Amino acid sequence: MPKDNPRHPDFPIPGGPERRAKTWRAEGLLRLMENVLAVGEAPEKLIVYAALGRAARNWPAHDAIVKTLCEMEEDQTLVIQSGKPVGLLRTHKGAPMVVMANCNIVGQWAKPEVFYDFERKGLICWGGLTAGAWQYIGSQGVIQGTYEIFMRIAERRFNGSLAGRFILTAGLGGMGGAQPLAGRMAGAAILCLDVDAERAKKRQEIGYLDEIAPDLDTALAMIKAATDEGRAVSVALVANAAEVYPEILARGIVPDIVSDQTSAHDLVYGYVPEGYDLARVQRLRDQNPEELIEAGRESIAHQVTAMLGFQRAGAEVFDNGNLIRTQAKAAGIEDAFDIPIFTEAYLRPLFARAIGPFRWMALSGEESDIAKIDDVLLEMFPDNKIVTNWIKLARAHVPFEGLPARIAWLGHGERTALARRVNDMVAAGELAGPVAFSRDHLDAGGMAHPNIMTEGMRDGSDAIADWPLLDAMTLCSSGADLVAIHSGGGGYAGFMTSAGVTVVADGTKDADTRIDLSLTNDTALGVIRYADAGYPDALDEARVGKVGHIAL
Amino acid sequence: MPKDNPRHPDFPIPGGPERRAKTWRAEGLLRLMENVLAVGEAPEKLIVYAALGRAARNWPAHDAIVKTLCEMEEDQTLVIQSGKPVGLLRTHKGAPMVVMANCNIVGQWAKPEVFYDFERKGLICWGGLTAGAWQYIGSQGVIQGTYEIFMRIAERRFNGSLAGRFILTAGLGGMGGAQPLAGRMAGAAILCLDVDAERAKKRQEIGYLDEIAPDLDTALAMIKAATDEGRAVSVALVANAAEVYPEILARGIVPDIVSDQTSAHDLVYGYVPEGYDLARVQRLRDQNPEELIEAGRESIAHQVTAMLGFQRAGAEVFDNGNLIRTQAKAAGIEDAFDIPIFTEAYLRPLFARAIGPFRWMALSGEESDIAKIDDVLLEMFPDNKIVTNWIKLARAHVPFEGLPARIAWLGHGERTALARRVNDMVAAGELAGPVAFSRDHLDAGGMAHPNIMTEGMRDGSDAIADWPLLDAMTLCSSGADLVAIHSGGGGYAGFMTSAGVTVVADGTKDADTRIDLSLTNDTALGVIRYADAGYPDALDEARVGKVGHIAL
Ligand SMILES: NC(=O)c1ccc[n+]([C@@H]2O[C@H](COP(=O)([O-])OP(=O)(O)OC[C@H]3O[C@@H](n4cnc5c(N)ncnc54)[C@H](O)[C@@H]3O)[C@@H](O)[C@H]2O)c1
Ligand SMILES: NC(=O)c1ccc[n+]([C@@H]2O[C@H](COP(=O)([O-])OP(=O)(O)OC[C@H]3O[C@@H](n4cnc5c(N)ncnc54)[C@H](O)[C@@H]3O)[C@@H](O)[C@H]2O)c1
Repeated sequence: MPKDNPRHPDFPIPGGPERRAKTWRAEGLLRLMENVLAVGEAPEKLIVYAALGRAARNWPAHDAIVKTLCEMEEDQTLVIQSGKPVGLLRTHKGAPMVVMANCNIVGQWAKPEVFYDFERKGLICWGGLTAGAWQYIGSQGVIQGTYEIFMRIAERRFNGSLAGRFILTAGLGGMGGAQPLAGRMAGAAILCLDVDAERAKKRQEIGYLDEIAPDLDTALAMIKAATDEGRAVSVALVANAAEVYPEILARGIVPDIVSDQTSAHDLVYGYVPEGYDLARVQRLRDQNPEELIEAGRESIAHQVTAMLGFQRAGAEVFDNGNLIRTQAKAAGIEDAFDIPIFTEAYLRPLFARAIGPFRWMALSGEESDIAKIDDVLLEMFPDNKIVTNWIKLARAHVPFEGLPARIAWLGHGERTALARRVNDMVAAGELAGPVAFSRDHLDAGGMAHPNIMTEGMRDGSDAIADWPLLDAMTLCSSGADLVAIHSGGGGYAGFMTSAGVTVVADGTKDADTRIDLSLTNDTALGVIRYADAGYPDALDEARVGKVGHIAL
Repeated sequence: MPKDNPRHPDFPIPGGPERRAKTWRAEGLLRLMENVLAVGEAPEKLIVYAALGRAARNWPAHDAIVKTLCEMEEDQTLVIQSGKPVGLLRTHKGAPMVVMANCNIVGQWAKPEVFYDFERKGLICWGGLTAGAWQYIGSQGVIQGTYEIFMRIAERRFNGSLAGRFILTAGLGGMGGAQPLAGRMAGAAILCLDVDAERAKKRQEIGYLDEIAPDLDTALAMIKAATDEGRAVSVALVANAAEVYPEILARGIVPDIVSDQTSAHDLVYGYVPEGYDLARVQRLRDQNPEELIEAGRESIAHQVTAMLGFQRAGAEVFDNGNLIRTQAKAAGIEDAFDIPIFTEAYLRPLFARAIGPFRWMALSGEESDIAKIDDVLLEMFPDNKIVTNWIKLARAHVPFEGLPARIAWLGHGERTALARRVNDMVAAGELAGPVAFSRDHLDAGGMAHPNIMTEGMRDGSDAIADWPLLDAMTLCSSGADLVAIHSGGGGYAGFMTSAGVTVVADGTKDADTRIDLSLTNDTALGVIRYADAGYPDALDEARVGKVGHIAL
């Protein structure tokens, strides 16, 4: 039975043993689609996160997806084009239930203005990374990523601990909202700006944020008190980052770590320029988007200039994947790219071994299922410090949103082993229902994103998009339940291509095979992608992990 | 046993009953790769056609592909990234033997200069449409396409016959070389220019071209004599189109039909500017490509200005898919797009029913296999005028190159039916060996190419690239033997994305399934793509053909 969803009463959280679809494979995907709306930012508009990332093209498309998932047989495949179901084809039991391509535009046309034009005509929608592929699990989805970044910085620069350290950042949206909690979990005092008071309030309500400060002076005083005591705290301030970053710099205060997760990638539907209130921005989106673009770029120039100032003053400054440097450069800030991207700066060694944000969702809706899997995970990987540390922290700090879920950075072989074990638990009746396995698109084999994921690749292959396409083709050839190819929409149009995958562990033998093939091949391809680019870690992993790399 | 290949003695034509690979599925793909080289333009450089379209990244990659195809098992999938084999993964019997992604570049980077940079670094290669996917079968591959265009024009403007009509065109390369034969088959007098005497000689040697004229006066006289008599003839002239088109226009001579198939899409490795000889162009490719680009654009401006002049004087002028209008427009010819693209002008009604360039190759190397399939085809589709007319003409006029092959424009259901029947013939021992089925990437569901294939789509969805990606994912989910996703390289970089498919009819029951699913779903998706765009023909076909279209 679905559960109440106080945040969005019209979008209950799915769960329970009753199936509406003919198979758990389809029922699982249906629940995941319901779940991204239940935990999304504006489900009534089908918007999940990142300003415009949608679960389906429009309501008729959504309804037809629901209907088809309920009616389809196991030897059929539902084909979805940019959030709209277009065909139901006969395939076979070892084929995906759903394949989807979202927002892919031929290269020379892949620009924000073309995207918006297609969107207005109803021809396309952007799926974000995990919105359209029904894999988003709320802020917890990115929380470990943000946390791991903070910990890598702690290890490199602060003797392994962020106690007494000040993190300054902005953006409390669907993704950015993970920052205050990740900062607190890492032991720091973190200040997060957002122009939208509602966003700050929401994060506080769901337990991701400790305090909302009334003004900058108070906020800085709260941070100072916490750092003096070495106490972890998260503080929000409702303010524009383009105004406050320069102000803090002008006061001679240098945070230890500075980043930003406003929707800087989208100057029309995302970033709010300084001096503009939300109502005015709303109006201008239709009436004068050009003005927003121009004012947004100028504001970003101010914000990034301050970030560069913090960097020169010794702060650890990084881009957290929102194209803020790209926008600043377009606004004339020539050295914007002196700020490193988080992937290249902190995560490359993990990706080279295909370690990345793996996740699973208890389709039963029962939190106890996740707890049991937590136990199994700790038992299976006692020596994996990243995993054991994370699971302990997550249990203590990360509140569930929507379907109970967990994320953990696992690599080649580990993902398959865990999912196989869970499938056994489902078969043995140890869990209340089937479990879906998925990952972020930002994964070793899954993404080409030259300003984020693949910036600064060793061999210069940053912009080559063959890899995510091969990944998707391989996943379709491996019986994954859902396979998606996404490209960027909104301000990300033309900036990325990624592949997503979901497999449902329904306790059957067939699921064993699907898990074996698809999860193994997905990470194998990740290792191969990095081995091909010449990363020694990947070449090593390719050897020990037997990934089927062909070395020339 | 392989057969001698006089054109390229080092690249024998594969054939015979002996297998080197463990399965006919892999052996078939291996033979097709050998075949594209045997019939290619410069096999020693792995170049198949369209200036730079390659069968493999480089020779070590080629050799590793051969080795892997020979050694792999049926439950494995070989992964090829831009012509380089990178992984051999365990999948299952119902998965492709080979998946490949060729030359896909993230949108904002998908530009010729980025492509050339990647190519120089050895990170990428362009597969053309059918070169890298090992589906090219020599000039005959495009010959029916060119012929059908001429016939559509004949029907619309010349009472169904081109007898006594003058066609002017240029380009006698791998693809363009089909023009003289297609023109003659259509009953016209056709004059084809090419700057390269070697190309003209080759076309004459293989029976695609009747005569080579020593100069323009003679050429025009030969054409005049033929049109006066209503006699079909093909004449080549070794000359630059940018000089001769304006010269013919200046003489007040207006051909009935004008087109061009020089490699205008590539200003560095393709189009030769007026006043430049081949040796100089060769040198400049390395030393000063910018000069070539500039001079090429200027020449194309002259040529297209003449083409517009012919159009105003009443000629039927069309772009045959080489971006010549795009280049002319970049050179300042504002009305270049007054010239229509052949797809939109002549072929849309066929594509709306997923009728397109289907093809099959006798892996045995025996011409008699093709003859037997011709007979079956005539028997199966007696009422399909396009097919019966074509097969009769092809038997009489089209010489085989490389592995004996045939092309025929077949649609949804027809392709599956033919391939199933042929698989039965293989099983029954009626043919000398297995047969591979494939198609051009330029097919209803297979291609997004806003300046060629999808120009002027009814709903404005020209640049949406979801469809070929969905096609590839569907084909991987349907057990096709080879599935490829290609994007444009060289001057086509950023201009297209396409999907290719090959299935081997090896006489097994499993092949029946693979044929059923993959060929049916491929055309189903083609019909769905056009139905989704609102074409009445497609909506009709979706109804009668039961393609699984979800109509919203
Ligand atoms: N690590 C990654 O690669 C990664 C992962 C997820 C999201 N992202 C990117 O991070 C960004 C944020 O994602 P999201 O899902 O949270 O987006 P969102 O649209 O849900 O939230 C953005 C927030 O920024 C606030 N904001 C806008 N302009 C502001 C300004 N000038 N000052 C202060 N606040 C401002 C908005 O009020 C909003 O709350 C996006 O660009 C997204 O694509 C990156
Ligand atoms: N219908 C289609 O969509 C379709 C199908 C196949 C190929 N094409 C396009 O057609 C073009 C030709 O393909 P191809 O495989 O024959 O290429 P190719 O490189 O093999 O041949 C091009 C020929 O053009 C000649 N040439 C170059 N500049 C010239 C000039 N100024 N005047 C006269 N001749 C000149 C060259 O000598 C060469 O023989 C390409 O742009 C290709 O991509 C379109």
